[in-house]
Amino acid sequence: MPVPTHIFDPPFHIVRCSHVVLDVADLAASRAFYEGVVGLRVTDADADAVYLRGVEERQHHSLVLRKAAGAACRRIGFRAGTEADLDKAAAHFLRLGLPATFVNLPFQGRTLQVTDPSGFPLEFVASMEKRPSSLQKYADYQGVRAQRLDHFNVLAPEVQQSLDFYATLGFRLTEYAEEDGPDGRIAAGWMHRKGNVHDLAFTNGRGPRLHHFCYWVPTALDIIHLCDVMATSGYLANMERGPGRHGISNAFFLYIRDPDGHRLELYTSDYQTMDPDHEPIRWSLRDPRRQTLWGSPAPKSWFEEGSAFADQPQRDAAFVANVIVAS
Amino acid sequence: MPVPTHIFDPPFHIVRCSHVVLDVADLAASRAFYEGVVGLRVTDADADAVYLRGVEERQHHSLVLRKAAGAACRRIGFRAGTEADLDKAAAHFLRLGLPATFVNLPFQGRTLQVTDPSGFPLEFVASMEKRPSSLQKYADYQGVRAQRLDHFNVLAPEVQQSLDFYATLGFRLTEYAEEDGPDGRIAAGWMHRKGNVHDLAFTNGRGPRLHHFCYWVPTALDIIHLCDVMATSGYLANMERGPGRHGISNAFFLYIRDPDGHRLELYTSDYQTMDPDHEPIRWSLRDPRRQTLWGSPAPKSWFEEGSAFADQPQRDAAFVANVIVAS
Amino acid sequence: MPVPTHIFDPPFHIVRCSHVVLDVADLAASRAFYEGVVGLRVTDADADAVYLRGVEERQHHSLVLRKAAGAACRRIGFRAGTEADLDKAAAHFLRLGLPATFVNLPFQGRTLQVTDPSGFPLEFVASMEKRPSSLQKYADYQGVRAQRLDHFNVLAPEVQQSLDFYATLGFRLTEYAEEDGPDGRIAAGWMHRKGNVHDLAFTNGRGPRLHHFCYWVPTALDIIHLCDVMATSGYLANMERGPGRHGISNAFFLYIRDPDGHRLELYTSDYQTMDPDHEPIRWSLRDPRRQTLWGSPAPKSWFEEGSAFADQPQRDAAFVANVIVAS
Amino acid sequence: MPVPTHIFDPPFHIVRCSHVVLDVADLAASRAFYEGVVGLRVTDADADAVYLRGVEERQHHSLVLRKAAGAACRRIGFRAGTEADLDKAAAHFLRLGLPATFVNLPFQGRTLQVTDPSGFPLEFVASMEKRPSSLQKYADYQGVRAQRLDHFNVLAPEVQQSLDFYATLGFRLTEYAEEDGPDGRIAAGWMHRKGNVHDLAFTNGRGPRLHHFCYWVPTALDIIHLCDVMATSGYLANMERGPGRHGISNAFFLYIRDPDGHRLELYTSDYQTMDPDHEPIRWSLRDPRRQTLWGSPAPKSWFEEGSAFADQPQRDAAFVANVIVAS
Repeated sequence: MPVPTHIFDPPFHIVRCSHVVLDVADLAASRAFYEGVVGLRVTDADADAVYLRGVEERQHHSLVLRKAAGAACRRIGFRAGTEADLDKAAAHFLRLGLPATFVNLPFQGRTLQVTDPSGFPLEFVASMEKRPSSLQKYADYQGVRAQRLDHFNVLAPEVQQSLDFYATLGFRLTEYAEEDGPDGRIAAGWMHRKGNVHDLAFTNGRGPRLHHFCYWVPTALDIIHLCDVMATSGYLANMERGPGRHGISNAFFLYIRDPDGHRLELYTSDYQTMDPDHEPIRWSLRDPRRQTLWGSPAPKSWFEEGSAFADQPQRDAAFVANVIVAS
Repeated sequence: MPVPTHIFDPPFHIVRCSHVVLDVADLAASRAFYEGVVGLRVTDADADAVYLRGVEERQHHSLVLRKAAGAACRRIGFRAGTEADLDKAAAHFLRLGLPATFVNLPFQGRTLQVTDPSGFPLEFVASMEKRPSSLQKYADYQGVRAQRLDHFNVLAPEVQQSLDFYATLGFRLTEYAEEDGPDGRIAAGWMHRKGNVHDLAFTNGRGPRLHHFCYWVPTALDIIHLCDVMATSGYLANMERGPGRHGISNAFFLYIRDPDGHRLELYTSDYQTMDPDHEPIRWSLRDPRRQTLWGSPAPKSWFEEGSAFADQPQRDAAFVANVIVAS
Repeated sequence: MPVPTHIFDPPFHIVRCSHVVLDVADLAASRAFYEGVVGLRVTDADADAVYLRGVEERQHHSLVLRKAAGAACRRIGFRAGTEADLDKAAAHFLRLGLPATFVNLPFQGRTLQVTDPSGFPLEFVASMEKRPSSLQKYADYQGVRAQRLDHFNVLAPEVQQSLDFYATLGFRLTEYAEEDGPDGRIAAGWMHRKGNVHDLAFTNGRGPRLHHFCYWVPTALDIIHLCDVMATSGYLANMERGPGRHGISNAFFLYIRDPDGHRLELYTSDYQTMDPDHEPIRWSLRDPRRQTLWGSPAPKSWFEEGSAFADQPQRDAAFVANVIVAS
Repeated sequence: MPVPTHIFDPPFHIVRCSHVVLDVADLAASRAFYEGVVGLRVTDADADAVYLRGVEERQHHSLVLRKAAGAACRRIGFRAGTEADLDKAAAHFLRLGLPATFVNLPFQGRTLQVTDPSGFPLEFVASMEKRPSSLQKYADYQGVRAQRLDHFNVLAPEVQQSLDFYATLGFRLTEYAEEDGPDGRIAAGWMHRKGNVHDLAFTNGRGPRLHHFCYWVPTALDIIHLCDVMATSGYLANMERGPGRHGISNAFFLYIRDPDGHRLELYTSDYQTMDPDHEPIRWSLRDPRRQTLWGSPAPKSWFEEGSAFADQPQRDAAFVANVIVAS
């Protein structure tokens, strides 16, 4: 299937993925997980929400936990270049006949909320409040030393259509997994804005759903430490997959589940991709090393489970990809 | 079942595990694996054998590969204190009615070969030739930087009997896995001489067989590097289990198989055990974290396969332990 | 002194720093250093030049060693967006009355060579030949695993003027060191294009000279390994400063000197800077932690020595900054 | 000068170094340093003393801080094999005309206090209280993850005499630094009981004084983290030397000073030494790599300063060794 053509002059400027908003059933339990185990920092909290960020981040938050009746992902957020880009974005989505609304949110200020053609609820910000970076507050480090939000991975019922749409917004494809043969379909694609492997990836599956969000960490040893901490402090069942090395992205990774089942990846050691002539890497769906370079297949839950987006109807995947699954 | 009582004044002095002798079908392929991939150093080689050692080791070899018709483990070797200890050891084994013979082997000199009550073929040396340590020849480091032989793990048909016998030789139990309940049997035990978790471990199973031998490495990152090297240089199928953290021993580990199927562990971060009143740690067979702290079960092959000892008849395990296996 | 105002719409698009061209007296000795000790990969070599790159890099080279009568830096190179950007760049420099010439260079193709107002000789490329990345050729890793060129640091006689000029080319200031007081002058500034701390830094000093070029490496342990290798393989005298942690950039670093005295930094763990409203960090010249977070001052040679640019007259620094030096 | 002859059958059994007792002026400040910054665990504390241990240690304490008028080292402690060894030790010291007294100390029980021929105050224990190891309480890890006490280093006015005396107690020499030439004197020696490079080292200097005590840590990255923590939390001035690699012992090290100036080393990656025929390594005093493999000299304070032993008169070193010092 065709690799989408990159648009060098997109209709508005997206800098990078910025934040994710999660509905959680038990705010205290979720805070204990993200603050106490993972080691994110709480910037603000009240009875209804907790705002967290990585140790490097100067933006007010990259993760919002909202008290809710049930678990869901509210929205995935992106940083737009400037306030003017928000206006251009709103015009662009409306021109396409897609919903686009401005709201004013705590700590984020003017926020553009839109829904993409597949039903993914996005929001864009340009002026989130700033806080001092904690990068050199080493005495406060704990957990996996999660440094910054790195990317989102979503389950998309029509991956090709999603890749094509986001290419028109200026996202660049860096790697993709494809069926073999002349009519092979793309089963997953990784796209970036900020110059590493991805800000947003699409995996073939019932959707729209959030597969996971990911924080970048400094070294593999930080991830190993998190495994040791989780296994010995009551979170053994929350460890889903890894640690291991992805073939795709070359990242050393771990997937964990939060108290509501939302999936978080910890990730390090991918590579630069900002050259305009950077060529995407193709992986055959039949190569098990694309998932785990070392060969171990991912568990069934990893392929099947994801966070629903609140209020978004889901539909099945366009096709059933023949991937390798650990039973 | 009773934990064996430690003998503080053994009949002869064993310092530590020393070396292992393997029969291999293709000497060149095995050398390529141990020298080129694992990164052991070749001290000597001829048409019939290759002698290797870790980067720290001053002894001539800790691994001998012997060209043979089929794969087998010849012997596992221990360092005795002095030549006088060899004589005391020979007398001790003969007194027990066990075979004991002195042979003169290349680079090892006077070598005592014995067979223990379960049929494990051992040899003891006190004067192996010395070579300069390569510990500070950093420019020559490669592979996993295997630093020194750490231990043997053998499949024993009667673990309790083996633990009791080796306790009489001065080995100390540091950890053991046991069935729950008043008549619970010990399914595996770890025993040391040199002051860390083990020189020799016994796992319940058809035997006598060698389950694995193990080299100590400096950090978990060295093990991760070996995974990356093996997965991308034609050795993907030789990666059997891990990397992960053992509950037992606290070691970060990886199990790999050599071209003949002999199993090698790479291992780091256990602890000191030399105090005379050091208490062994008991693990329930029902606790999956004893094998992998992070919960992932070991694959079936890991429980079932091992290297035969040449010319040693095998018998089934005394009982079937109910362990957790990944199908 | 004023922090330069960032230009969001520069006259042409610079992607990142790309390569450096060094004159060396003994090509074989330099190749042995960069390939054998540092672990860069040789893409091509002939009697007059050696072309090297990091393990991640897909471009033909990020370092060119040229056989010459004496040591010098020929040029520092940047990646322009497209061929059209090269034309815009040429027009821009000519409009400013600065030299700008197109040449055709091996493996680089059409190359624009210019000289900036302070005499720094630059070149821009948009179509350098590509080679497969070696990122997942783990069996070939050696040395410090230098992954990609990260930045240049130059000694500039008039730092403020240089910062102002490069700001007009779209470079963003991320950190700077300044004298205290109302008339404090900026003694050093770090500017980026690619979204991390810098592509190009300016340090107050006699110039134009190249202070160092830098490769990014995955972890601090890789840098420690390089120290061990250099100290034990005849390169002890080439170790100039570190390892340590910079306050500025937060990077873990090591500075080494090549056989001609050209200075190379190895570097890891800085942070993202691509947000349009990213604020630069100010450091007082009196804070020793800006150089080394842990307090150790840099040696005298580090402040005084640098590589001349071939054929470029030098002049003294605009002022003498009062920095802390280890005697 | 003669290397001392090892005694294989010492008059009593010493297992390893065990604990150190320090007088400190401000108990709260010292506790904040050792617990909050270094990351040792407090087992017990009252108004007069704080008892701490490493994460691996099962003994009640390896460090005792005692409130006192001024800073001093009270005693360095060793683990004897059994209570019977304490009696043999007492008899041995008394036979030599040296002071030997039994006292009963909190958590240590019966404790033998002796003074060696050079005035070093030692104590031996065989039945210190036990506490559960915290090795797998990963959620509680902090600071440098100091795992266990590794060794003492003392300033001895007559190194040769000290080495000879401790050899008679069964200590083995593993490395030593010596003047060149036929009459070269030993300026420093490293001796072990537990099977790694040392439990006790002697450095030529005014004494008896404690140069430093040392905790073993898992990896160099833990030491780098401690540097980052200290530099950014008010302990910059307490960082004295390193991090670096010792030529002697091959250890990666850092020296820090506590609030009273007592010196603590953090240390990893030495090697095994338990073979009876293990040969000591000789270093020339003229080789700077013995101190720091990477060449950087130690600062003046490191050579000159140390902790007095309470109530022990000091005398000058037997000779002035010509070592390399950073001014």
